[in-house]
Amino acid sequence: MSVTLHRFAGHAPSLDPMIGLVARDMDSVNDVIVDRMRSEIPLIPELAGHLIAGGGKRLRPMLTLASARLLGYGGDRHHLLAAAVEFIHTATLLHDDVVDGSDLRRGRRTANIIWGNPASVLVGDFLFSRSFELMVESGSLRALEILSNASAVIAEGEVNQLTAVRRVDLAEERYLDIIGAKTAALFAAACRVAAVVADRPADEAALDAYGRNLGVAFQLVDDAIDYTSDAGTMGKDAGDDFREGKMTLPVILAYARGDEADRTFWRDAVEGRRSGDADFAHAVDLVRRTRAVEDTFARARHYGQQAIDALAAFDDGAAKDAMVEAVEFAVARAY
Amino acid sequence: MSVTLHRFAGHAPSLDPMIGLVARDMDSVNDVIVDRMRSEIPLIPELAGHLIAGGGKRLRPMLTLASARLLGYGGDRHHLLAAAVEFIHTATLLHDDVVDGSDLRRGRRTANIIWGNPASVLVGDFLFSRSFELMVESGSLRALEILSNASAVIAEGEVNQLTAVRRVDLAEERYLDIIGAKTAALFAAACRVAAVVADRPADEAALDAYGRNLGVAFQLVDDAIDYTSDAGTMGKDAGDDFREGKMTLPVILAYARGDEADRTFWRDAVEGRRSGDADFAHAVDLVRRTRAVEDTFARARHYGQQAIDALAAFDDGAAKDAMVEAVEFAVARAY
Repeated sequence: MSVTLHRFAGHAPSLDPMIGLVARDMDSVNDVIVDRMRSEIPLIPELAGHLIAGGGKRLRPMLTLASARLLGYGGDRHHLLAAAVEFIHTATLLHDDVVDGSDLRRGRRTANIIWGNPASVLVGDFLFSRSFELMVESGSLRALEILSNASAVIAEGEVNQLTAVRRVDLAEERYLDIIGAKTAALFAAACRVAAVVADRPADEAALDAYGRNLGVAFQLVDDAIDYTSDAGTMGKDAGDDFREGKMTLPVILAYARGDEADRTFWRDAVEGRRSGDADFAHAVDLVRRTRAVEDTFARARHYGQQAIDALAAFDDGAAKDAMVEAVEFAVARAY
Repeated sequence: MSVTLHRFAGHAPSLDPMIGLVARDMDSVNDVIVDRMRSEIPLIPELAGHLIAGGGKRLRPMLTLASARLLGYGGDRHHLLAAAVEFIHTATLLHDDVVDGSDLRRGRRTANIIWGNPASVLVGDFLFSRSFELMVESGSLRALEILSNASAVIAEGEVNQLTAVRRVDLAEERYLDIIGAKTAALFAAACRVAAVVADRPADEAALDAYGRNLGVAFQLVDDAIDYTSDAGTMGKDAGDDFREGKMTLPVILAYARGDEADRTFWRDAVEGRRSGDADFAHAVDLVRRTRAVEDTFARARHYGQQAIDALAAFDDGAAKDAMVEAVEFAVARAY
């Protein structure tokens, strides 16, 4: 079957097929997550639970489970790894919110606001350590290699992003490096470890490519919907990135394509001197006029198509359909 | 040979024998450390190097190397693990300084003061990830198990300490739990992994006990010298803990043994209302009058003796002598 990226005919693309595909596996993963958040120090499950129970989609562990299903793997050795992936992700979010000084995530107050930065840093460290304990328990050195490398790449990407903060002239290439590291690396690793567990080393690269391209597409759409009015679909409020002066692709494109007045506006915005509602309205106008949002979605579709193409060699079936539709969902969710 | 803890006859106890014992191994470990701090993101080696090159003793990797020597292991598989241990330690220090808001460490400005909290959090995460990459490369799942467990215990201990902050009535037992986790667990793991590398599983427990007791003794002495005038031996300034309102054993004992006026003073100090020079002078007077510092050193000697006893079954020789003298050094360094 050759699949191309398209709007679904009968219904809007959805994550539901993937959720259904892995529902039973996910129950086991959730049990592991709840079990391993435990600690004699009550603050740990309390703080970690706030985020982990807080309405996340568990997309990354779902990708591990779906990828294993794609390979016909029927065991349960990947449940620990899927939980490890979610713990790495959660630890990263906790530290991200400290680094960005964020006060809202998925519409709820962030852990750093409720319990303070020190607790968020330390509970993040705890979850990160726990994730490695889970990987060790899974018994696969190769999976450990993939996920520990991804962790280092994520941290590198975060530092890279930190040093790019408030730089309005950030190159698109460097921006892609940053999201490739801080977002796509874990998507790639989450998919790739399924090939390790299923003992299908020859399929590692394809699953990595699927996850990596999906991750980039996912992040680009996330960046774009910050400037669209119907944001909120993924629990994010329109204008969050703008108000934090975050450099994302819509800003990079709008700045590059703008005239002198536009560039002055963006410089002021990124340097924190324009963050009011009227400023945001003007920003939305600029990204639309320069087609920056439209082209960010187009870039996302490009990566989405690559993700789908990475699955070409795998057998058709429910798993592949679900993984393709997850890409469609990722790139279409703002329409 | 039966060894008891005593003041050395001819000379003050020193780390020099251990440093000499592992000098060549340590050169290799230092090469690994320098190599793995590298990154395309310049801020990473810059920030990490500030702390790693900043006059630390590298005591923890040294313990891995000395323990391997004690077991007669002559290979180099433990060099990666020793570097991993130092990276875990460094990551912990970076996050600690953020959590405590510290501005000085080993007499130099802390990384969080120079580069800010976000950079310290993220570079800590990077070093932590790198440490796991090093462990994976060492190829031993058992070593990974020991060190990932230690990492989780450290983070738990840090959170435990955080929830004990400014609680003047902290129980000695809970305090020992905290330092057992945040300090001694890594000492224990650093020694224990040597038995894994040397393929001497039966010796794991003894090396763990040596490291754990040494770690507790080391921390207690660190706590005590904060209240002695000749502090600074280990790069720490007298009064640092006091001014931060940190609960340590000298405070716990002085509070427990003090009268109502003393207790009011300690409560005020721990809650941050007394941190001047005159307050510190009064605190030093109180911990002396209540024998709190003296007894903290006595507790340290107790654990030091247990560390030495843990080595009883091992063959006499230069390695054992060096490891015994390291304990003597740890407990005697404030005299």
